[in-house]
Amino acid sequence: MPGISHRSTTVPLSPFRKLIPLADAAKAKGRHVYHLNIGQPDIVTPQTALEKFQDTPIDILAYSPAEGHLSYRKALVDYYRRYDIELDHSNITVTTGGSEAILFFLLACLDPGDEIIVPEPFYANYNGFGHIADIRVTPITCNIEDGFALPPMQSFAAKVTPRTKAIFITNPNNPTGCCYSPADLRELGNIVKEKDIFLCVDEVYREFCYGDNTFLSALSIEGLEEHAVIIDSVSKRYSACGARVGALVTRNEDVTAAISKYAKLRLSPPGLGQMLSEFMLQDDTAYLTGVKEEYERRRDLVFRRLQAIPGVTSYLPGGAFYCFAKFPVDSAENFCRWLLEDFEYKGATVMLSPGQGFYATPGLGVDEVRIAYVLNEKDLDAAMDCLEKALASYPGLRPVASSLMSAEQ
Amino acid sequence: MPGISHRSTTVPLSPFRKLIPLADAAKAKGRHVYHLNIGQPDIVTPQTALEKFQDTPIDILAYSPAEGHLSYRKALVDYYRRYDIELDHSNITVTTGGSEAILFFLLACLDPGDEIIVPEPFYANYNGFGHIADIRVTPITCNIEDGFALPPMQSFAAKVTPRTKAIFITNPNNPTGCCYSPADLRELGNIVKEKDIFLCVDEVYREFCYGDNTFLSALSIEGLEEHAVIIDSVSKRYSACGARVGALVTRNEDVTAAISKYAKLRLSPPGLGQMLSEFMLQDDTAYLTGVKEEYERRRDLVFRRLQAIPGVTSYLPGGAFYCFAKFPVDSAENFCRWLLEDFEYKGATVMLSPGQGFYATPGLGVDEVRIAYVLNEKDLDAAMDCLEKALASYPGLRPVASSLMSAEQ
Repeated sequence: MPGISHRSTTVPLSPFRKLIPLADAAKAKGRHVYHLNIGQPDIVTPQTALEKFQDTPIDILAYSPAEGHLSYRKALVDYYRRYDIELDHSNITVTTGGSEAILFFLLACLDPGDEIIVPEPFYANYNGFGHIADIRVTPITCNIEDGFALPPMQSFAAKVTPRTKAIFITNPNNPTGCCYSPADLRELGNIVKEKDIFLCVDEVYREFCYGDNTFLSALSIEGLEEHAVIIDSVSKRYSACGARVGALVTRNEDVTAAISKYAKLRLSPPGLGQMLSEFMLQDDTAYLTGVKEEYERRRDLVFRRLQAIPGVTSYLPGGAFYCFAKFPVDSAENFCRWLLEDFEYKGATVMLSPGQGFYATPGLGVDEVRIAYVLNEKDLDAAMDCLEKALASYPGLRPVASSLMSAEQ
Repeated sequence: MPGISHRSTTVPLSPFRKLIPLADAAKAKGRHVYHLNIGQPDIVTPQTALEKFQDTPIDILAYSPAEGHLSYRKALVDYYRRYDIELDHSNITVTTGGSEAILFFLLACLDPGDEIIVPEPFYANYNGFGHIADIRVTPITCNIEDGFALPPMQSFAAKVTPRTKAIFITNPNNPTGCCYSPADLRELGNIVKEKDIFLCVDEVYREFCYGDNTFLSALSIEGLEEHAVIIDSVSKRYSACGARVGALVTRNEDVTAAISKYAKLRLSPPGLGQMLSEFMLQDDTAYLTGVKEEYERRRDLVFRRLQAIPGVTSYLPGGAFYCFAKFPVDSAENFCRWLLEDFEYKGATVMLSPGQGFYATPGLGVDEVRIAYVLNEKDLDAAMDCLEKALASYPGLRPVASSLMSAEQ
């Protein structure tokens, strides 16, 4: 029997997917599972846009241009203008979700063995795309105690080697919810200019910055025209994860030309998703405001509930719809498995993502989890009830020292 | 300014795309361009399916499972049963077009430096996906004189090295239109069993076998359960290239498990395209029969017209909607450029794909082109008028020797 490749045996599996069989088994036992493990919101996709989309006659569902439909790219130019970002449609390549934009960036800008510097914990699938592109991920460790703010900027400069081609960040951050300050971004801009490398920013949560947090796009930083590359997607903004429509945006024409080769190879991004996305960009202000307020309420709820659980360390995340939490457990992965296999409260349990898979440095995140607050407040409250009860009865609990408790913030 | 990767400078560009700027320039001059260069049919996508799709309420356009919607995979099981292929839905991974299935196969089954054996001329983007996966394409040359039938089977066995992991063919073939005989396929099956490698068959033109040609799927060959992998897509079958919905099908569970890792990494294939594809599979008999008859008439028209042009070598293709032709020109690429830059007949010209890009062996195909008969008979006839006139006036014509003319068939 012919064998599979060696490389396929070492693909890093995403930590928010690998416990799915256990969740399926729990459901088969009749248990309700609150899914806080994956960024699949329960928010309704814009219905007006869907109606317009479904009213549009389609004669031949043809390939779109490899770079995306011109009308959609032009509509995106108008969208970015809302953030005072002036672009030409030629700066925008439409991709199959943000995922494809990540892979295209790595292929177009890095050779095998090259490196990107990424603050950890980070979106775990960067590892997987890095694995396909055969590049290295160099982590810069951030800490839960200060809400995963970026460490002093010299630690980035210190990690740059001759093989480093980019600093790669997610802002607002998945999985930490940290919203990086404009000052930090400008400092990162200075470093990439000095080192002559790229600043690639995954900005798919751009709309979701709460309270006093201010979003600054890498595309808005002056002097970074040749260095800034951003990853974008409609998935989270419009709760349209299934559309599989993303974008790679850069004013660096060489990068666009290199990306274009990979884009042509796969012929076309999804046509129906692009049509829908163009409609979603229209009249979306009320929708986006409502969604942001909804997430902000959920964030506050999760934060409040976590603060009330003995031994839990967490923080008020500034953006996106995730937070990390440190639990008084032997192993967050064991705890997450136990939640699905052995625990129930009022016929339900909760699924979380173990934190370790979001770190590149071995040994970090073993007692941390990522929580995606993608459920409505009622469900979220019920899920937090489960979590609170579970953290009182889990057999692998560590004793909660008073010093640890006072470390909560 | 940070530089792009070296690898991106060597991505093989698909030969049916690189002349697009010249076509755009011709259109800007007011010339009509008959596009016979790309497999984008002018056939209408099934309207009943589109209506059902557009009548279906969508609440949240969520990620589908990474392997595709269960209901769609089960519908595909019924579809393959029409060809007497018995599958379980777990044998089917839904992909983002056939393109993604090709890349997933190469990543899951080959390591860098491994090889696939491919009859040439072949679908040129195999080179590009091979480039991403860092694998080698070993060509087996087929000849226009015998309609690109497979060469004697021992030539495949002779090319197998310790790094060979698969024989990879397209059946019916793009770009040649050759429909391989069941006997040839069974012989290939014997070789892959003996050598313990995969037989990966791109079967996206399965429905389009004309006249006496019989289609045999690799999945139907007994004893090949662990070796056969097929690439599929709705793009050509339903003239729905923009749906970006394909599939990888194999009974080899190790391959499916390896593919699943790459599938999870990119989260989900397109959701809207999958919904539409599930509707397209219903009540499609009359549609598919009509489309096949239409393509068969077009094939006959192109064959008849090519036979009537002095110095042209061609053949009656058995399937798909392509054929190759050898022209009495200095260089088919120069001729194709000249068609777009300097030629017009009744305000129109024709775009073809130069043949060289479909070969891996240097120097082959320089006077050949691929013709995609994707236009209706009236347009196709007008395009062939252009071609006939052009082949009478092109400055780089080779003298047509009588011996060459008699080689026409």
